[in-house]
Amino acid sequence: MILALAGGVGGAKLACGLAMQLQPERLLIVVNTGDDFVHLGLSISPDLDTVMYWLAGINDSTRGWGLTDESWNFMAALEQLGGLIWFKLGDRDLATHIERTRRLTCGQQLSEVTRFLCNKLGVRHRVAPMTDQAVRTIVYTDEGALEFQHYFVRRQCAPHVRGLEYSGASGAAPSTAFDKALSRNDLEAIIICPSNPLLSIDPILAIEDVRGRIKRQHAPVVAVSPIVGGRAIKGPAAKILTELGRDPTAFEIARHYAGLIDGIVIDEIDAELRQKIEQLGLRVDITATVMKTREDQSRLAATAIQLAAHIRAL
Amino acid sequence: MILALAGGVGGAKLACGLAMQLQPERLLIVVNTGDDFVHLGLSISPDLDTVMYWLAGINDSTRGWGLTDESWNFMAALEQLGGLIWFKLGDRDLATHIERTRRLTCGQQLSEVTRFLCNKLGVRHRVAPMTDQAVRTIVYTDEGALEFQHYFVRRQCAPHVRGLEYSGASGAAPSTAFDKALSRNDLEAIIICPSNPLLSIDPILAIEDVRGRIKRQHAPVVAVSPIVGGRAIKGPAAKILTELGRDPTAFEIARHYAGLIDGIVIDEIDAELRQKIEQLGLRVDITATVMKTREDQSRLAATAIQLAAHIRAL
Repeated sequence: MILALAGGVGGAKLACGLAMQLQPERLLIVVNTGDDFVHLGLSISPDLDTVMYWLAGINDSTRGWGLTDESWNFMAALEQLGGLIWFKLGDRDLATHIERTRRLTCGQQLSEVTRFLCNKLGVRHRVAPMTDQAVRTIVYTDEGALEFQHYFVRRQCAPHVRGLEYSGASGAAPSTAFDKALSRNDLEAIIICPSNPLLSIDPILAIEDVRGRIKRQHAPVVAVSPIVGGRAIKGPAAKILTELGRDPTAFEIARHYAGLIDGIVIDEIDAELRQKIEQLGLRVDITATVMKTREDQSRLAATAIQLAAHIRAL
Repeated sequence: MILALAGGVGGAKLACGLAMQLQPERLLIVVNTGDDFVHLGLSISPDLDTVMYWLAGINDSTRGWGLTDESWNFMAALEQLGGLIWFKLGDRDLATHIERTRRLTCGQQLSEVTRFLCNKLGVRHRVAPMTDQAVRTIVYTDEGALEFQHYFVRRQCAPHVRGLEYSGASGAAPSTAFDKALSRNDLEAIIICPSNPLLSIDPILAIEDVRGRIKRQHAPVVAVSPIVGGRAIKGPAAKILTELGRDPTAFEIARHYAGLIDGIVIDEIDAELRQKIEQLGLRVDITATVMKTREDQSRLAATAIQLAAHIRAL
């Protein structure tokens, strides 16, 4: 079985690729919930929804988030009422949030709700939140501390980032599925998707003992760099790395995960970084990592799986 | 100033007529909130919304409830998720419930939220809930006790009604606007709209001391019969009256309000009931009471106002 850690669009795309490569029982996708928040009374889990909608094939590929063929009549009416409209909620997408909120209010855990929603949307592979407890990413900026979605959506990542906090993470337990996967003797690989390391992956690693348990796992850990040619494919990864005084490079991604991962997949454009990364003690595979098509997703997933298999065989 | 008591579509229509006849400062429309409930985590006030949407001219006239030019994509998506779909919520209508819920959660009173929503929707006349406290109509039926919307919408008024309870009413205070209107020395009239007496008006009258204060008011009280030719224009008034062993007639409406009202407007088709109703000590005015057009609304409102003026002049 393979465990994938994911968040955001890069994570969702590689999750689709892994789902094309692996039977449902051979894959667990654990998703960041540090971005979750309560907005307009609704429990919103943006990364879970992104992964779920992509796996269901009903995502909007252009925007990256939300549903395809979406309508925005709720939002237009809310605007007329002078309501909070900085976080866009499509009419169909609202059903996900209303139903999730209803079930959570009834006492179900987020894991259970996620399983239910995935099942209803025809997602065959398993998706689990990193934890069923509340973890909230706080972004410390030159405008003060911002809740994640206020930084990410309301302020469109404009403020200068000075630091990050995954509030609640160290005291939160992994979700049951995540916990079981981390304890398996037969785990084949842990794949860190090309998600933002600071915003999507580190919250997962910050969950109680998760980093230590991944290190102690016999399964090889392979990351896919979200930085290509000094830029993030999507999102503020490069901007934030720079603001924190770090180079936005695939090497910096490797260094960020060093001590945790065994190998990394980087883009052809960054081939010159191979030797420098190998000096960190990591195996490097080089391929085209920009996923524009489903074939790209599948091929990149296969590369990551093969790198892990290669490391396991050493 | 004229105080109107309303609920449901009949109430909303006459409220529109009164709004055509009277300047905003001369009218207060107090609306039943016994139908209110929390559904899918949203605070829903069906009668307030019906009155508000009709006054704003954005109501759906065919359905009677909800907004015109509505879309139903949220509902379709919720159905796909196996959610609760017996209470239909349009995409635009959802904004009202989300914004109301958000403001109530922030600690605003329903009166304040109603004023805000009316203002945003361009309603110039004043609309107030009967109370800012929770009153819930319970329908006792041959299938047991049902919360109002479960009786009215989910079960489509099918169960046989054995009794009604306005839970919380006797301990609830009138809303500030309602309270002030009831205390005015210069109140010109209290008009009971052609709403369901048992489901829409009695909850208002059951609020602490409201019935007594209306009796003690010098202003004449005039009702408009919602029963025409032995039938309700819309809704289950006739069915419920029959199930409770009472005749579904305009006379029964007069008898129901006897001791509280001074006069009643009945339909031409019920002209033969005039004498019988007058024997209850009531003044009777006879006109066409079915409101199909805005002109019908305006004309019927004028008739009710004139009957009150006539009684006041006696």
